[in-house]
Amino acid sequence: MAARKADAEWTGNLREGAGTVKLGSGTFEGKYSFATRFEEAPGTNPEELIAAAHAGCFSMALVAGLDDAAFQEQAKAAKENCPVSKALRGVETITLNARLFPA
Amino acid sequence: MAARKADAEWTGNLREGAGTVKLGSGTFEGKYSFATRFEEAPGTNPEELIAAAHAGCFSMALVAGLDDAAFQEQAKAAKENCPVSKALRGVETITLNARLFPA
Repeated sequence: MAARKADAEWTGNLREGAGTVKLGSGTFEGKYSFATRFEEAPGTNPEELIAAAHAGCFSMALVAGLDDAAFQEQAKAAKENCPVSKALRGVETITLNARLFPA
Repeated sequence: MAARKADAEWTGNLREGAGTVKLGSGTFEGKYSFATRFEEAPGTNPEELIAAAHAGCFSMALVAGLDDAAFQEQAKAAKENCPVSKALRGVETITLNARLFPA
């Protein structure tokens, strides 16, 4: 697999500083801070970027043409076995909410 | 910490399907596909989202007023110990490239 990159810049201290994260593809650049991460200020945070990576990873593996029970089964298996899940071994709880939309 | 969310939608099969990832904060929505993930097509991919989360996480912990040697030391420690690093225990190699800009 190609190497994938991102940049983060942070100015100031933890509590009052401000940062920017940028995806290597150039598709997103977003502001973040203590308040966007640990409180509810508008902006991004590392945890939702991981959530997006994870959801993006295992949803690719799901196939159409299943009924909902089979789909939920597949979604659960994908959540356990996709490369991002394996990377995230250190995370205690990850919640999956999978919905199948009719084609 | 607040719960952080993201959504992914995928339509079609792994090889020819297409997807969208969305951050819970609403700051980013991006297209991805087999080609953006495993080849070099323009678009995002789960791996660079993780890279952004990781860089964003540990750069918050770095403090100004250090010389470069002390900064590199701190950056290395932050990379080992930030919550995202701990979550990513399953990842074999993560490369750090830290630069200190004069205040």
